[in-house]
Amino acid sequence: MSTTATPQQRTQQRLQENVRIVLVDTSHAGNIGAAARAMKNMGLTRLYLVTPRQFPHADATARASGADDVLARATVCASLDEALVGCRLVMGASARLRHLSAPVQDPRQCATRIVSEVSTEGVECALVFGREHSGLTNDELGRCHFLGHIPTNADYSSLNLAAAVQVFAYELRMATLAGYTPETSAEGSEPLACADDMERFYRHLQQTLETIGFLDPANPRIMMRRLRRLFNRARPEEVEMNILRGILSAAQKHKTQ
Amino acid sequence: MSTTATPQQRTQQRLQENVRIVLVDTSHAGNIGAAARAMKNMGLTRLYLVTPRQFPHADATARASGADDVLARATVCASLDEALVGCRLVMGASARLRHLSAPVQDPRQCATRIVSEVSTEGVECALVFGREHSGLTNDELGRCHFLGHIPTNADYSSLNLAAAVQVFAYELRMATLAGYTPETSAEGSEPLACADDMERFYRHLQQTLETIGFLDPANPRIMMRRLRRLFNRARPEEVEMNILRGILSAAQKHKTQ
Repeated sequence: MSTTATPQQRTQQRLQENVRIVLVDTSHAGNIGAAARAMKNMGLTRLYLVTPRQFPHADATARASGADDVLARATVCASLDEALVGCRLVMGASARLRHLSAPVQDPRQCATRIVSEVSTEGVECALVFGREHSGLTNDELGRCHFLGHIPTNADYSSLNLAAAVQVFAYELRMATLAGYTPETSAEGSEPLACADDMERFYRHLQQTLETIGFLDPANPRIMMRRLRRLFNRARPEEVEMNILRGILSAAQKHKTQ
Repeated sequence: MSTTATPQQRTQQRLQENVRIVLVDTSHAGNIGAAARAMKNMGLTRLYLVTPRQFPHADATARASGADDVLARATVCASLDEALVGCRLVMGASARLRHLSAPVQDPRQCATRIVSEVSTEGVECALVFGREHSGLTNDELGRCHFLGHIPTNADYSSLNLAAAVQVFAYELRMATLAGYTPETSAEGSEPLACADDMERFYRHLQQTLETIGFLDPANPRIMMRRLRRLFNRARPEEVEMNILRGILSAAQKHKTQ
């Protein structure tokens, strides 16, 4: 890793190196593949599989769709304990909120904690996901420092396994990028028209509307105020302003033909 | 809905009633089912399918896994325009960040905006997702007020379709539960023009620009795309839309005098 890496890049690197996604007793190979894809999309690569029913399997490869490198490097373990060796922070995903268990956090809180711990302390973290139909057992939950709970619709609370991995991995990425500003905001890349350009435009607009018979020259104010509000809200760029002026000129010229 | 509902319950109800998830040209029925499951988990129910390749289909039902009521009530449409009738806020999911397009927001920003708009103004919103391999076309993106971009790993950016739906639906749920109180909307309290009004306006604008000799009828696309970007950004109110249409009519009529 280059010494010129940004803080985000360093955190990203830490997550790649120190966060493992652990799937326990997964029934359907397709879910393993889809989980690998969700991980890689969000910049995670370390997959641990505890006693998977089918692995490797064609369904896993098909659903991984380009994340087959994550599958190829997956670690298959005989027990959850084996998968957790070296981990200082263990989070268990849980659809149900159980009594007498670890503190419950939503995925955003989990992600903030994981990012904070791997960044500042170099801690190895595991995010553990249970069986498709029954989740994690009480014994398995007993190995977790925190439970991660996705706040689902109470009437229909069971997420697909890979969808749950996607949500947690997404929150890890958002936490990594925090302070992230999308660069391609439509405002800002192009120079905006300045106030005096806008005023010339509004005068031109008013003249044109009079010319084409749309505006009552005796009482243009309310209409012009409405139009100002609309175009000010759009905050036109210089280029767009030139287009609008061109349209007005074309409409005016049309009168004399 | 009971009068004793909490603010969160009221927002949840608004989302259920006023947010539609629109899937365009989906190839794999399994993805439709998985998207329905992701929606229902997060409390969304209104699914619109624009020209799906396979629907209804056993793969959709299998992957829906209990969300088959969402599939059963899905609306199949012949075009994106049909799916957007009545929508005043259109968000398009996009993996790529394109030039000359709408402002880009991450899923959290999208969700905040949607929750704010449906809460305070009863606005109908659409979240539009494109094809598995190629996303939305430029024309389809031209119908969107904002692009929703999931900040993926740059080396592997293509999420599974249902995984993308899951992320946006999750953020909508998180925004609902945040106890979030919408601020006064900058757009004011007037009803905004809906997607079908906007399309009629763009057709009228194009005709008028041809009539007044501003637009090359042989190659109108780049100019029309620029104008779409400008007016989508302004998000005209119904009243403003009527004014703009009136201006166009006046300019057209002028020709015959």
